Amino acid sequence: MTDDRFEKQLRFIVEIDKMKNIFRKTLIIDGTRRENDAEHSWHIAVMAILLSEYCKDKSVDVMRAVKMALVHDLIEIYAGDTFAYDEAGNSTKEERERDAADRLYALLPQEQGAELRALWEEFDAEITPDARYAAAMDHLQPFIHNYMTDGHTWREGKVTAAQVCKRMEIVRTETPELWGFVERVIEEYTKNGCIIAE
Amino acid sequence: MTDDRFEKQLRFIVEIDKMKNIFRKTLIIDGTRRENDAEHSWHIAVMAILLSEYCKDKSVDVMRAVKMALVHDLIEIYAGDTFAYDEAGNSTKEERERDAADRLYALLPQEQGAELRALWEEFDAEITPDARYAAAMDHLQPFIHNYMTDGHTWREGKVTAAQVCKRMEIVRTETPELWGFVERVIEEYTKNGCIIAE
Repeated sequence: MTDDRFEKQLRFIVEIDKMKNIFRKTLIIDGTRRENDAEHSWHIAVMAILLSEYCKDKSVDVMRAVKMALVHDLIEIYAGDTFAYDEAGNSTKEERERDAADRLYALLPQEQGAELRALWEEFDAEITPDARYAAAMDHLQPFIHNYMTDGHTWREGKVTAAQVCKRMEIVRTETPELWGFVERVIEEYTKNGCIIAE
Repeated sequence: MTDDRFEKQLRFIVEIDKMKNIFRKTLIIDGTRRENDAEHSWHIAVMAILLSEYCKDKSVDVMRAVKMALVHDLIEIYAGDTFAYDEAGNSTKEERERDAADRLYALLPQEQGAELRALWEEFDAEITPDARYAAAMDHLQPFIHNYMTDGHTWREGKVTAAQVCKRMEIVRTETPELWGFVERVIEEYTKNGCIIAE
């Protein structure tokens, strides 16, 4: 190795520590504070391992989905977290995240930066089976947190049942056996008013 | 699937959220607060991906090491974090962690709990190449954090150069090309008094 090569990787390792200060809307389950991106990424990576048996597409490379889960939010270090139900934020998200990726992946040795960026782009496009499974976990995890924290971000964001159903659609297609749980929660939280019936 | 099976997995997913409240001695790199176990596990999993080229043993299954990195500290939910340089704490660590594993992995469906427990036991024994590589990342990450936070836990723990060298030995054996960096940092922080020369 060259010292220069490791120096770049070290700078990246240090830079991504900032994930620990990027806070999401979601609360941690005890309700005491918002969750950060490092914690969220860890949680969905573990969930991807735990729930792989429910993956409809048996060609999915679960550990490749785990790798995507680990890096999928790195661009938020510069682009910030965009709340899933924030329409205005989501209209500028693509450009902000592309600029962030340009900046972030340039820190790494060229071919390594390109590889990780390609993995993020694949995740973001939600087309390949690996990416779709990783995205299903990415949507299911905050759903579980909402379920456990009295619908916190649903209430805060005045979210409708139709919006939640749309957001969770990827769970229905990729891990259909988990849809029953999702449906029951949406029904219960719409009944109790945490989710707007419309 | 049975509802009962997913119910168990869901309970486990909710339980491990407590990792976000298990605080380590290590500070996050901006120095504002201590790091928690979820953040640490995420960071070393990403490092294991980033630094795999330095792995001396080319038979290492990097993604298996990543899997170990993700689950290696789960038992601390019940056993608490034991500071690497705390001799008294480390004398009771084994028993505390075994009891914690009994309790934690019993939450999951039997064969899945047994599989994850075996992975943790393999990590903990530090014998197989996958486990040794994961452990090297587990020791290197807080080392980098100490380097970036003026030797915070070294100063706090009044740690000697011999203790740091011993702790970092696994980095020397598993990723020898990274040893030059480790050695330079130990030398610099011993010179400036953050590490005790003895």
